[in-house]
Amino acid sequence: MHGNGTAASSAAPSGSGSLAGAHSVEEILETHIKDPEQLREVQRVLYGFNCGHPVVPLQLPKESLAAASAASRPFDFRGYAFAAAPEELRPPRVVRIGLVQNAVVAPTTAPFAEQRQAIWDRVCEIVNTAGAAGVKILCLQEAWTMPFAFCTREKHWCEFAESAESGPTTALLQPLARRWGMVVVSPILERDGAHGDTIWNTAVVIGNNGNVIGKHRKNHIPRVGDFNESTYYMEGDMGHPVFETAYGRIAVNICYGRHHPLNWMGFGLNGAEIVFNPSATVGELSEPMWPIEARNAAIANSYYVAAINRVGTEHFPREFTSGDGKPAHKDFGHFYGSSYVAAPDASRTPALARDGDGLLVADCDLNLCRQLKDKWGFRMTARYPLYSDLLAAYTRPDYAPQIIRDPSL
Amino acid sequence: MHGNGTAASSAAPSGSGSLAGAHSVEEILETHIKDPEQLREVQRVLYGFNCGHPVVPLQLPKESLAAASAASRPFDFRGYAFAAAPEELRPPRVVRIGLVQNAVVAPTTAPFAEQRQAIWDRVCEIVNTAGAAGVKILCLQEAWTMPFAFCTREKHWCEFAESAESGPTTALLQPLARRWGMVVVSPILERDGAHGDTIWNTAVVIGNNGNVIGKHRKNHIPRVGDFNESTYYMEGDMGHPVFETAYGRIAVNICYGRHHPLNWMGFGLNGAEIVFNPSATVGELSEPMWPIEARNAAIANSYYVAAINRVGTEHFPREFTSGDGKPAHKDFGHFYGSSYVAAPDASRTPALARDGDGLLVADCDLNLCRQLKDKWGFRMTARYPLYSDLLAAYTRPDYAPQIIRDPSL
Repeated sequence: MHGNGTAASSAAPSGSGSLAGAHSVEEILETHIKDPEQLREVQRVLYGFNCGHPVVPLQLPKESLAAASAASRPFDFRGYAFAAAPEELRPPRVVRIGLVQNAVVAPTTAPFAEQRQAIWDRVCEIVNTAGAAGVKILCLQEAWTMPFAFCTREKHWCEFAESAESGPTTALLQPLARRWGMVVVSPILERDGAHGDTIWNTAVVIGNNGNVIGKHRKNHIPRVGDFNESTYYMEGDMGHPVFETAYGRIAVNICYGRHHPLNWMGFGLNGAEIVFNPSATVGELSEPMWPIEARNAAIANSYYVAAINRVGTEHFPREFTSGDGKPAHKDFGHFYGSSYVAAPDASRTPALARDGDGLLVADCDLNLCRQLKDKWGFRMTARYPLYSDLLAAYTRPDYAPQIIRDPSL
Repeated sequence: MHGNGTAASSAAPSGSGSLAGAHSVEEILETHIKDPEQLREVQRVLYGFNCGHPVVPLQLPKESLAAASAASRPFDFRGYAFAAAPEELRPPRVVRIGLVQNAVVAPTTAPFAEQRQAIWDRVCEIVNTAGAAGVKILCLQEAWTMPFAFCTREKHWCEFAESAESGPTTALLQPLARRWGMVVVSPILERDGAHGDTIWNTAVVIGNNGNVIGKHRKNHIPRVGDFNESTYYMEGDMGHPVFETAYGRIAVNICYGRHHPLNWMGFGLNGAEIVFNPSATVGELSEPMWPIEARNAAIANSYYVAAINRVGTEHFPREFTSGDGKPAHKDFGHFYGSSYVAAPDASRTPALARDGDGLLVADCDLNLCRQLKDKWGFRMTARYPLYSDLLAAYTRPDYAPQIIRDPSL
C-alpha cells in the first residue's frame, strides 16, 4: 500500500502485463488518493491494519540490495514486517520468509536443457538475494523449472519432471539452502520412479541443513479454462502434511487448492503457522479472486498465507484450443504475478508487480497465529463434529439435502 | 464502484461513522482515481467483473423512488444487476433481492415497547420501498427489532425475544409479505415457549403468501470482543436448512457464522443459490474482514451472498467492560453498515453507506450459480470423502496431526 524505499530496483516499466501503466493496484491507489486520511481509511478497510497501522516496510540488508543490483536484470524486491502483541510467557517468534515470482527466460522453442538452465540461473540470483536478505523460509512458484505448458496437452513437456528427492533441481537448491541456513520450498513437476514413472505436481521441502524434509503433492487438480491438468497428473495422495522446520511449522497449498476451503482447513488442523500457495494463474481467469482467497484462508485458519503467482505471458510453438469458442492460439494470457502475504489478523502486504519478476520478503511474528486463535476463537466454536457428520452423510450417494419447501406453493 | 444515478436519496452526510468524510470506500476510489482506465483496472481486480464489466446499476421503479422520498428520513437506496450467460435449454432466472441496514431509532433508555415500535415504523418504510421496487426476497439485519445489547450481559434485554411463528414481529411482516408477494427473512431474538422459554438467535423465513416457511438458528456463537453471546443463546440446533421459496433456494448464515467456511459449505451442500448473512459487527473488530469473507463464500460455493450489517453507534444506559483493558464505557463502537452482494463469479456490488440506513436492491440471475459450478468444477474436485475422513479423525481426542519433522534438527 506504500512504496518501499528500500527497494533495490523495481520491475522494468512495460505496457505488457501492467494495470493501465501501473505495476500494481496499490501503486494506483497511492498515486491517486491525495487525501492522506482517506487513503488511510482505504488501506484499513481493503488491506487491513497490523497492530494499528498498515503493514510496515522492512529495511532490507545492504548485502541483499547489492546482490539484487548485481542481478542480470532488475526485479521487484521489497520487504514488509508483521508484528504481534508482546506476551509475558513467550518471546516473539519472528521468522523472515521470502516469495519468488518469475517469468520463464528462454523461448519455449529452445532445447529443454537450455530453457531449464536459463530459469535455474535467473532464480538462483533471486534465491541468493533472499539468502543475503536473511530470509529463513523461501518458496518458489509452482512448477518453477519450466513453462506452464499443461494447456498444450503435449506429453513431451513431461521431460521436465524429475525425482523430488534426487533430481537435479533439488540437487541445485540443497547447497543454497545449506549456504544460507534457509528452508527452501521447491514446487516442481515430479516423476515417481518407484511407482511406475508416475507424474505429480509436487512441492519439495528442503531443510536449512540441505536435507529433503519431505514433499507434498497438489491435492486438488483443475479442469478449468485452458487446463485439465489431469492430462498430466492426478490428485495428491499425501494428505495435508505440516513440515516442522527449524523456523516454524509450514505447509504448501499448491495452486488450485486455494479455491477449496477444506484444503486450507486441513493444513490448519495439522498445525501450520505459514501456508505457502505457489500458483500459476492468468488474469482473465482468476484475478478478482486473488486478493480474496488467500486472505480468507489466513483469517479463517489463524495462520499466515504466502500467495505466489507466476508472471509473464508464455508463447508455445504449436497452437491449442481452450474450449471457449475462440480460435486456436499459442498463449493463454498473462500470469499476473501480484504475490503477497496475508496475516491472520486480516492485514496483508501490498502485492509484488503484476508485470515482472519479484522477491517479497516478510517478517512474520508467528505468535500472531495463536493470539488470533485466542481472540476470535474460531477453532473453539467450529463445531467439527457437526461437519464430520454432515460430510459423512453427504458422501453417501443417497444423501437427501436439508430442504424446507414452502408448503403454500 | 460507480454512483447509482437512480438513487432516491443518499445517507445524510455526517462525520459520524463516515470514512474520513466519505460514505464508502467506493466513493473514495471514484472521486480520486481520475484516470478511467486505471479506475477500471482497480474495479476489475478489487471488485470483479460480471459478464465483462463492473456490476451495472439498476434503474429503480418510479414507485419505489416515490416511496423512498416519502420516508420520514432519507436512506441510501441503490440497485445493481448481475447477469449470466444465455443458455439454450434454460431461460434466465432473475430474482430481485433486497438488503436492509438500519440504525436503532429511539434511545436505549426509552421504554422497550417504544424502542421496538420506532424500529418497526422505520423499517416498514424501507420494506414498503423494497416492495414497490419489485423486490421478491428481502432480508433484514440481525436482531433487527432491538439494539444489539448483548455486550451488556444484562438479562432484561431478553424481553425483546418473541415467538418465531406467532410473535408480533412475524405478525407485522406477514401482511407486508402478502401485499408485495415478497419473501421476507426476519432475523429476531427468538423465545421458544415450547422448550422452556429458551432464547435463540433466529432468522424467520416468511413466504410470499405470508406463511412462515420455517426458521434457522444461528449455528456459531461468538465469544469475542464485547460479546460472549452465549450469555443469551447457544449454538443453533437446526443444521443447514435451505428454504425453497417461490423465487429460489435461499439460506441464512447469521453473523459470526460468516467466519466459518464449513458453515457456508453446509448451506451450499444443501443447494442454496442465495445465502443471506445478516450481521451486527463494528469497525474496530472486523471491518477488513468484511470485504473478504462473503466474497470468498460466494466464490467457493458458487452461490450469491448478500452481506448485511447493522449501522450506527448504540449507547447503553449502564456502563460495561470489554476485556480489552480499557475503562468501562457505554458503547462499543460503530456498526459500519457497508452491506453488499457478492456473486459466484467473484464480482460484487459497491457497498451501502457506512454511516446511514440503506436499502440495496440486486437483480441476480440464478443461472450464474450452475454456470460457475460447471466452469470451475469446485464440487467435482472437492474430494469430500478425504475431508469426511479427516474430520472424523480430528474429532477424536487422540487425533495425531500429520507433522513431518525435519530429522536433521
